[in-house]
Amino acid sequence: MGLSPAVRLLAGLSLVVSATAAASQLNIVPLPAKYATGDAVVCLTHDFEVKFDNDPPQDLISAASRMVKRLRCIQHTYLSPSRGAEFLANGGCNGYIDSLHLSVSNPGTVFAHATKPIGQRNETYELSVPTSGKATGKAETALGAFRALTTFENLWFTTQLDPGMSLQVPLDCPARIIFAPFAPYNINDAPAFRWRAVLLDTSRHFFPLPSLRAMLDAMAAVKLNVFHWHVTDSNSWPLDLSALPELVRGAYSSQQIYSEDDVRELVTYAGERGIDVVLEIDTPGHTASIGESHPDFIACLNAPWKDNANQPPAGQLRFADDAVVDYTTAIFTAAAELLSSAYFGTGGDELNLRCMRDDGPTQATLKEKGWTLEDALLQFTNRTHAVLLKKGLTPIVWQEMVLDHGDLKLSVDTVVEVWLSSAHTRAVLDKGFRVVHAASDFFYLDCGHGGWLPPGGNSWCDPFKPWTKMLSFDPYANVADYQRHLVLGGQVSLWAEQTDDANLESVMWPRAAASAELWWSGGPGDTINALPRMHDMRYRLLGRGVRAAPLQPEWCALRAGACVL
Amino acid sequence: MGLSPAVRLLAGLSLVVSATAAASQLNIVPLPAKYATGDAVVCLTHDFEVKFDNDPPQDLISAASRMVKRLRCIQHTYLSPSRGAEFLANGGCNGYIDSLHLSVSNPGTVFAHATKPIGQRNETYELSVPTSGKATGKAETALGAFRALTTFENLWFTTQLDPGMSLQVPLDCPARIIFAPFAPYNINDAPAFRWRAVLLDTSRHFFPLPSLRAMLDAMAAVKLNVFHWHVTDSNSWPLDLSALPELVRGAYSSQQIYSEDDVRELVTYAGERGIDVVLEIDTPGHTASIGESHPDFIACLNAPWKDNANQPPAGQLRFADDAVVDYTTAIFTAAAELLSSAYFGTGGDELNLRCMRDDGPTQATLKEKGWTLEDALLQFTNRTHAVLLKKGLTPIVWQEMVLDHGDLKLSVDTVVEVWLSSAHTRAVLDKGFRVVHAASDFFYLDCGHGGWLPPGGNSWCDPFKPWTKMLSFDPYANVADYQRHLVLGGQVSLWAEQTDDANLESVMWPRAAASAELWWSGGPGDTINALPRMHDMRYRLLGRGVRAAPLQPEWCALRAGACVL
Repeated sequence: MGLSPAVRLLAGLSLVVSATAAASQLNIVPLPAKYATGDAVVCLTHDFEVKFDNDPPQDLISAASRMVKRLRCIQHTYLSPSRGAEFLANGGCNGYIDSLHLSVSNPGTVFAHATKPIGQRNETYELSVPTSGKATGKAETALGAFRALTTFENLWFTTQLDPGMSLQVPLDCPARIIFAPFAPYNINDAPAFRWRAVLLDTSRHFFPLPSLRAMLDAMAAVKLNVFHWHVTDSNSWPLDLSALPELVRGAYSSQQIYSEDDVRELVTYAGERGIDVVLEIDTPGHTASIGESHPDFIACLNAPWKDNANQPPAGQLRFADDAVVDYTTAIFTAAAELLSSAYFGTGGDELNLRCMRDDGPTQATLKEKGWTLEDALLQFTNRTHAVLLKKGLTPIVWQEMVLDHGDLKLSVDTVVEVWLSSAHTRAVLDKGFRVVHAASDFFYLDCGHGGWLPPGGNSWCDPFKPWTKMLSFDPYANVADYQRHLVLGGQVSLWAEQTDDANLESVMWPRAAASAELWWSGGPGDTINALPRMHDMRYRLLGRGVRAAPLQPEWCALRAGACVL
Repeated sequence: MGLSPAVRLLAGLSLVVSATAAASQLNIVPLPAKYATGDAVVCLTHDFEVKFDNDPPQDLISAASRMVKRLRCIQHTYLSPSRGAEFLANGGCNGYIDSLHLSVSNPGTVFAHATKPIGQRNETYELSVPTSGKATGKAETALGAFRALTTFENLWFTTQLDPGMSLQVPLDCPARIIFAPFAPYNINDAPAFRWRAVLLDTSRHFFPLPSLRAMLDAMAAVKLNVFHWHVTDSNSWPLDLSALPELVRGAYSSQQIYSEDDVRELVTYAGERGIDVVLEIDTPGHTASIGESHPDFIACLNAPWKDNANQPPAGQLRFADDAVVDYTTAIFTAAAELLSSAYFGTGGDELNLRCMRDDGPTQATLKEKGWTLEDALLQFTNRTHAVLLKKGLTPIVWQEMVLDHGDLKLSVDTVVEVWLSSAHTRAVLDKGFRVVHAASDFFYLDCGHGGWLPPGGNSWCDPFKPWTKMLSFDPYANVADYQRHLVLGGQVSLWAEQTDDANLESVMWPRAAASAELWWSGGPGDTINALPRMHDMRYRLLGRGVRAAPLQPEWCALRAGACVL
């Protein structure tokens, strides 16, 4: 295997570009919409660089620079018994790629395009990697060009490394062969769905910022584009808002807090990687942690959880109370200031009615105003949503807000997340709302790890949802043709009862990559077709330092298709 | 909080030693057999040391030195909302412990005692930590003294650290307060069961040596005492035997191999930590990887796995063949040389009969010898076991070897592992064999992560086995009184289809600690009583750099007993 580009350049390769044969030759997750591959082995020159045909935004330049740096240190080997040596055995590289030329026709940064309302997000790109010379990427937006960079990066392999080193990305890398075995590659790509989200709950456990950044990097590697940040809940309140500094009395500790700068920096970090950070402040349930600073705002605080909540601790906002409405409005206002998204999550799940019925102050207010509880919820919802709507933000709510509490007169633009069951999707669509598929029966990453409340038993949403289950979801099952435009996409959710920094990555990855494929490539997906690519993506993530779990024995990972039922 | 020992020494503390009240005051997993605690806060002096009353073996001295080093750098904080600050708020430490005096009455190293036949293993110890001055530990054997050291270490906490640092144990540690809040502690301890094992499969995935050493360290922290090393299987053959160097052609790569020195070093490392390494070479099934070097020895090699095996790849020894018997004998002989255990695993699970019936060479041999397949298996088993018995080793087999293939005339000492279902235990006992509980319905760490063969479905041994399930097992259910002595203990098993180095620790821990409690403290255990201690042990492991998974939201971990059904 030669290391010198010059001697390896071959002309006149015989290329077979066949979409059928290519099915197992393009190792990209998510699978591009259209592609063709060949049978030439191309390598990167050691001075490979990304060039821009016009004046690119700074965050696209930075993204290209990060990609080149990662490629120079690539850890990922081809998955075959000989780890790709078979491609280099006969004469080595057939040709060399010395540059990737990116052209972007519209102005604007990656960040700017990633944080637009989803109807305005353009992620389309074209990518062409010939058998030698320069590769080209073309996109209308910097966001599309960012997706082209991601696809380009995932085409490459290096030769065998020490597998014991796979979790340690070296800081400086000895020269290595970097090859792609099925050139030329010609890819025309755009997502099937524009909402491709990961939810992480940072209340049940706190996740340090470096872990969140690592998660965003992994999301970007599979073109996931929304981080639904369920930042607060009853367990802890880690969000430090300078206008309401008392709230972090509800944090686990003074070190388990996200400052406003932390949030802003994370929003920027995400946006530069094509990801929109949608913050959720779940109200009026799931708010016991506000009781640490404002016990007077919280019903059934410190009450027995079994009667007053779905899980400990009990406590939810006294939403009939004007002062509580004002305070919630202040929280939303302060939190929204930190974000760049067009969306804001207001929650609305699992409101415990018994807690409110037994709450003296709430009942007194209702009596005084002549309201039912639903009247109060309508007031609370409309007034708290009003501040968001006024800022031009679109609220995101859980399904109960449109299915369980009468007509809360939500803005028709409201995005509704279906979580209890995928069977509930149609009911939400029939009310005319836009839907994000986030159903626990397909997309909950936390299911299936056993009941966490002793004496024990199974997980409430048993069984575990394997990647095959996620990928086999049909986004349009039981959706009328005239409702299809209301399906925005989907989300995998990681509720953190049994997850913290210790197991975050292996619980999330590579399963979230399967959901990325579902929402990018359309679904239901073909799990047997996707298997080799899922293996590739898993080991690729591992090579980037992500503790993604293995899907099958290594014997199977090295032998595409050998391990299916 | 003072850092000077002298000024904090208080005399005449009022001590309440109450076994009932102490239930939530002793944070030890596994719970000692007998113990009493008090209400004084004792601290370690900065020059704390372990002293020996007589001439101790070198490996016990080293263990004490490692413990002191870890205690000086202890990361673990008390689990309460104020992280233990409540114990130091009123005057700080009530007294100081400057030394632990260990006395051992019998000769022999930790290693020597850990690798004895289990009837001769003595792990009994006494430990006394007063409210000031010197602590004392007493044991008949160095192994018992090692257990005393482990218990002693797990009594201590430090004050609040940066939780973001919890997975990074610092190399040098700033001075910190190290305290135990319920002194005096008086502990009399011995295990209920002598076989407390973890099985790890290093064939479906390779685990680097540092990971195996880290696993042994974590096992020692909860007094697990057998590492059942399922070193080879059909997927790969990582064991490099110098007498049979061709076998590692079945390894995943030249870097995914255990050399003889590796094995010997690991056996030593384990024994010095009170752990017996029991190697298993699974035969005659689960041997396809031998086909890489000896295809002629393997039936149904490269045949469709669905007809010939429970999972890919198919391939098992042609056990009717004399040359195969001789070769297997040579493997056992070479492997046994590396070990110090009195036990050796020979496997015997999941023999696929159809593979043998369709195998031309096997059928020819049977016809020639006038044998049935069971006759052949009897010959194979007796001849391969004979070399072990001759060396004084006791074979360990899976349940099929006594339940499924007629009377294979196994030595009555053979240890039988029940794995398919705990319902099968009685049948094995009724044949007079000793039993290790390893049933998949309670003790399989790999269950419940989804079917790994696309198109998908659930895990064959769904659902996931949470720690509560493991701890609630009754070792003597359906066991006659006269058979109780045949129950040696139990084992959690981690078959590595969906586990490698990336998720090993979070799949294994802290669940293996619950099994440690079951087998040390007896069972069935009380999950609600154990919950706060399991939390403590989980965070303690985390503080030692082990990626143990969280059991509940941190809110619950900080509030003992708040989160139960």
